[in-house]
Amino acid sequence: MKKRLGAILYNDFELLDAYGPLEMFGVLGEQVDIVVIAEQKGPVRSSGGPSTLAEYDFSDAPELDLILLPGGIGTLAELENDALLDFLKARAPLSEITMSVCSGSAILARAGLLDGLPATSNKMFFSLASSQSDAVEWREAARWVDAGRYVTSSGVSAGTDMALAVIERLFGTETAETAARFTEYQWHRDADDDPFKAYLNQADAAAIGG
Amino acid sequence: MKKRLGAILYNDFELLDAYGPLEMFGVLGEQVDIVVIAEQKGPVRSSGGPSTLAEYDFSDAPELDLILLPGGIGTLAELENDALLDFLKARAPLSEITMSVCSGSAILARAGLLDGLPATSNKMFFSLASSQSDAVEWREAARWVDAGRYVTSSGVSAGTDMALAVIERLFGTETAETAARFTEYQWHRDADDDPFKAYLNQADAAAIGG
Repeated sequence: MKKRLGAILYNDFELLDAYGPLEMFGVLGEQVDIVVIAEQKGPVRSSGGPSTLAEYDFSDAPELDLILLPGGIGTLAELENDALLDFLKARAPLSEITMSVCSGSAILARAGLLDGLPATSNKMFFSLASSQSDAVEWREAARWVDAGRYVTSSGVSAGTDMALAVIERLFGTETAETAARFTEYQWHRDADDDPFKAYLNQADAAAIGG
Repeated sequence: MKKRLGAILYNDFELLDAYGPLEMFGVLGEQVDIVVIAEQKGPVRSSGGPSTLAEYDFSDAPELDLILLPGGIGTLAELENDALLDFLKARAPLSEITMSVCSGSAILARAGLLDGLPATSNKMFFSLASSQSDAVEWREAARWVDAGRYVTSSGVSAGTDMALAVIERLFGTETAETAARFTEYQWHRDADDDPFKAYLNQADAAAIGG
């Protein structure tokens, strides 16, 4: 059965948060239809520079079986954006699976969607997510956490491993393994194997360029 | 010194071929300026679905220190596209480093730019690249090959490892390691460690969805 996956983008989203998972779902061909949604239709600029075209806005987005919410520096502004929070509150509970990558879980937590559930976020800025709700069972050491309808991953690259785990749940192990092999990706299959927990809240280490 | 990186996109490019490397260069902040170039300005549709906005076309693309050429199913049409081949012939020899991912090396080889050099390509469709020129020293077992001005990588995910190696060459080991840590990416640092050589030309295994 074909699934429709909506990637919810906003200005200054982190490129690989979105495109790691979208690559893996994208190679499934006819099994998944990917649509891009943002508050306004048109180009959405990533923190890295390139802009992705949103085909739908919050008023005309189609029904979604799967939702993907990336993180990124743009998260900080979106935590105060009622239009996005309201869209997620309306749509995520109707989805089969809503996935977040990196600080995307901060937004889901702010919307109250993770209350009572286990969840994770990226390691260097973990407190950004965990400070959004005390009712979430935050897991500091996890590559991703599958809580059923909500699957949250740690930073950037962890989203790709999470996506393959979700593909395995939906379409079976062979499909996930074929997607990984086709993309020459060495899938980290253990959700609890998190080498980056050593950097918990060490955001200073993230200062690279400017 | 700031570098300008031009990502050359075309219809049906493979998302992660472009966005794995662009993520790594993107987190370098002020050290790298990323621009997106295509034969026509405007949306360029990936094989996975989402469209990226090209800000420049071949007539007004700025000078480029670095070039990134992704692969993907769209490669097949581009091998016959003189506009792209001519643009690469004009610009790649002026670049400091031109990188390809996956079947992107087939296009570089068709343009004659890899003649006399070692190079690689994705494993399942290796013959697509190797059939473009007998004057290239094709390496069947390599995650990526650094031939100086031209750095070619194997399939999809290998491009991310290649990008970190190029970042290391340009900006130093600490910068590359910080980029990997920031993106929670487990960098495969050995260019010759290629677990996907086992799938050489086994393209049938790539049939997943449709």
